[in-house]
Amino acid sequence: MSAAPPTAFRLADVARAVGGTVVGDGEALVSGIASLDRATLADLTFLASSKYSALLLDSKAGGVLVSPELADSPGRCRNRVVVQKPHEAMLALLPRFYRMPSRPFVGVHPSAVVDPTARVDAESCIEALCVVGAGAVVAKGAWIGPHCVLGAGVTVGADSWLVSQVTLYPGTEVGARVVLHAGVRIGSDGFGFVYTEGAHRKVPHVGRCLIGDDVEIGANSTIDRGSIDATEIGAGTKIDNLVHIGHNVRVGQLCLFAAGVAIAGSARIGDGVMLAGQVGVAGHITIGSRAIITAQSGVLKSVPAGETWGGFPSRAHRATLQGYAAVNKLPDLIKRLERLLSRDPTA
Amino acid sequence: MSAAPPTAFRLADVARAVGGTVVGDGEALVSGIASLDRATLADLTFLASSKYSALLLDSKAGGVLVSPELADSPGRCRNRVVVQKPHEAMLALLPRFYRMPSRPFVGVHPSAVVDPTARVDAESCIEALCVVGAGAVVAKGAWIGPHCVLGAGVTVGADSWLVSQVTLYPGTEVGARVVLHAGVRIGSDGFGFVYTEGAHRKVPHVGRCLIGDDVEIGANSTIDRGSIDATEIGAGTKIDNLVHIGHNVRVGQLCLFAAGVAIAGSARIGDGVMLAGQVGVAGHITIGSRAIITAQSGVLKSVPAGETWGGFPSRAHRATLQGYAAVNKLPDLIKRLERLLSRDPTA
Amino acid sequence: MSAAPPTAFRLADVARAVGGTVVGDGEALVSGIASLDRATLADLTFLASSKYSALLLDSKAGGVLVSPELADSPGRCRNRVVVQKPHEAMLALLPRFYRMPSRPFVGVHPSAVVDPTARVDAESCIEALCVVGAGAVVAKGAWIGPHCVLGAGVTVGADSWLVSQVTLYPGTEVGARVVLHAGVRIGSDGFGFVYTEGAHRKVPHVGRCLIGDDVEIGANSTIDRGSIDATEIGAGTKIDNLVHIGHNVRVGQLCLFAAGVAIAGSARIGDGVMLAGQVGVAGHITIGSRAIITAQSGVLKSVPAGETWGGFPSRAHRATLQGYAAVNKLPDLIKRLERLLSRDPTA
Repeated sequence: MSAAPPTAFRLADVARAVGGTVVGDGEALVSGIASLDRATLADLTFLASSKYSALLLDSKAGGVLVSPELADSPGRCRNRVVVQKPHEAMLALLPRFYRMPSRPFVGVHPSAVVDPTARVDAESCIEALCVVGAGAVVAKGAWIGPHCVLGAGVTVGADSWLVSQVTLYPGTEVGARVVLHAGVRIGSDGFGFVYTEGAHRKVPHVGRCLIGDDVEIGANSTIDRGSIDATEIGAGTKIDNLVHIGHNVRVGQLCLFAAGVAIAGSARIGDGVMLAGQVGVAGHITIGSRAIITAQSGVLKSVPAGETWGGFPSRAHRATLQGYAAVNKLPDLIKRLERLLSRDPTA
Repeated sequence: MSAAPPTAFRLADVARAVGGTVVGDGEALVSGIASLDRATLADLTFLASSKYSALLLDSKAGGVLVSPELADSPGRCRNRVVVQKPHEAMLALLPRFYRMPSRPFVGVHPSAVVDPTARVDAESCIEALCVVGAGAVVAKGAWIGPHCVLGAGVTVGADSWLVSQVTLYPGTEVGARVVLHAGVRIGSDGFGFVYTEGAHRKVPHVGRCLIGDDVEIGANSTIDRGSIDATEIGAGTKIDNLVHIGHNVRVGQLCLFAAGVAIAGSARIGDGVMLAGQVGVAGHITIGSRAIITAQSGVLKSVPAGETWGGFPSRAHRATLQGYAAVNKLPDLIKRLERLLSRDPTA
Repeated sequence: MSAAPPTAFRLADVARAVGGTVVGDGEALVSGIASLDRATLADLTFLASSKYSALLLDSKAGGVLVSPELADSPGRCRNRVVVQKPHEAMLALLPRFYRMPSRPFVGVHPSAVVDPTARVDAESCIEALCVVGAGAVVAKGAWIGPHCVLGAGVTVGADSWLVSQVTLYPGTEVGARVVLHAGVRIGSDGFGFVYTEGAHRKVPHVGRCLIGDDVEIGANSTIDRGSIDATEIGAGTKIDNLVHIGHNVRVGQLCLFAAGVAIAGSARIGDGVMLAGQVGVAGHITIGSRAIITAQSGVLKSVPAGETWGGFPSRAHRATLQGYAAVNKLPDLIKRLERLLSRDPTA
């Protein structure tokens, strides 16, 4: 993530690293990776699809990763590395060109406030101005970025990374290799009130939040604790920015939730479910495994496993699309229909 | 909220506490509360409705709170406490089984940065790494969690709780017994610009934000200050996570706003209004007291008191539902209609 | 933004400051500005439009800014300052009546943690408990409020203001005169994963985030870094609270994005584009310059420059409105149509 790449690579070495072959000058040096329209002579770029061939024409790149069928695409840059899957090759090369984020040191920064009863592994990193509560456990290799707050009894698993200004409410359990981006809040009280004697009285929230291994959660997302049971996010699930997950929700493994999604309390989400941007899910319903919900949909009833639903209220995607198409035809149709009906006095 | 409940209770004592009667072994001990499917022999559970009777069959709980008509429901656990309202009884028992969140100490943590002109009550708690600005006032019993920032001239009322990493912009007034969850921002500048001479020029925001008594605001929600007048949240109103309230908005008492709601500037919201998840409210309109707006609706014009509205653009819920139903019928109808029209050359 | 205005002004002086003329008592003193219904005898108020004349009747203000045609509007307050544009005059007066936010001091607060390799201009301000990483650059006049985290290699331009608890991920570049409100996160990893061997594997994000001059971003909004290229926000663009902007998005100059907007990865937004509240924009599409998207719309395909679009899926605003109107007519029409069809056995 550092701005300055460490060194330069010969195209011949790039080709060897990704199992490709050089067309042109294998001695050409590149020291960064950039898109077709932004690359300079010092950059490697890639042409992943013929859709972008036009951008190759004028690209100033020093080298281009191309697939075999695009090896001869016209373009200013004649130094090419031919490889089966240029996009995948580029992803594989990134860690060679750029330094990935890593712990700046091992140990506890002197400005951090760590309760004496917390158990912080000697090979973890607690950055500046963190607060670690009583009985909290931070495992080996964990990296707690600046300004994080770990409440009492929290556990953070091995090699997890809390980027910055993350709040873990008391009792939260975070698994191994989890990434929590800046401003994530986990374990806040659920939105539960009972109206009695002229006031909304708060339902105590004594449940917790359990975040499985390999989960990633985007900036400023919020996950409420359970009222009695735990709110759970299954292993390998990835959640984008500004997502809300209500109390008692159980999310399965390997789900993908895009930005702006909101899931109401006690919903059950299976494994491998994909929720597109700004989707809302009502409380107490179930979304079956591998279901897909299209963008901005509002899901009010349970969705069977494997189906694609959309719209508001959501139903099978195909039906929703037909509904949209029909609405588009409607204004014109209504005109014709009204003319017709006007001639039939009995209608 | 602590993970470890303090002690165990006899079912006979549980029954006495909630005015119920024991069926089975009153000497059985329980030390926690859990849902039917998760309870162990050490847990008390509850059967709130016959809808969940199936879950009782195999529940491993050590005791069950049940209503009189379900006292004999079949189930592995025969130790029961019969009570009129099992769910309410369970809520009343929670504070006996679990330690509720409370101030960890009284006074100011040495790492906090408190302006010498701030007036902090001796019986309040300012946790680690807080910043308290000039002239700020923190009342008796208030609990300011770690990493909160209280701007100049802020006031926080008695027994209020700012959980963690809350920002109160200068001049914000927070009432008594208020709960502000992690990442709440109150008093940020409203979104007001005037386009002149080729730029969006900022409208100064000199109004403030007034938060009434007994308000609760969820994690990462934001409330803008007024441009001239104050933005106000009435007493007893509860706001969920990731909610946005624009400048100059006046919200009445005892409202409930679910997660993802956004209210544009200068809207007026009456008392007891319910906004479901992801609802949007346009600027300068009025939502009458006790109105209900259904999930994901976009409210573009004022809503009379007591009505239920929904959809986009929102109108009376009944009309919206009829519209949805009609759209569902539409594709088929259009086919039949087109056939009909095709036979009438004048239509 | 301070609660107490510094001093009082004679209405005659107010009139001189805005090029207006006094009707009534030019010696009357006012020391604050308030709306018609809230003003006291110590306040100046304004009547911007005849729409609000009724509120003038009972206003207790000590003076009123009015336009020439409303100079004689009936109302309790007879001391008036007549001016061509009362609202603009009021905005111009605000900085005379109220102290605008400004740096509380110059230098670095002793509680801040600043890397020795960071270059912090002697005339900037780093408030309490900030963290400034290796190689970061803070320019002259910049004001970094309490609890901000500036990652390694970040640059903050002249006279920019990070209000509080802002996170700038490593490598982020912020221009001059930028305002970032509390809880803004810039440069978080984009939501990019490749599913291989039973897991969603993270796509490295080595691009950065570039924020142009004069940009303002609202509380708790998030902007992801680019995967390879930069995510860019053009000069003079203003973004409201709780907005999400995905990786690789390029936003032009002078745009306005209201609260709750979400823009998916690699979208291109032209200059002067207006996105109303809660709009969603799909990835990889283009919204042409000066286009306007109405509230809560979902934009799934590219929008030509200068057009107004709305609805889901979005299309030209006019067509969308016709669709809504048609749906409203539909339930009744369907009844009549079904009657008609029922009499035609062939339809």
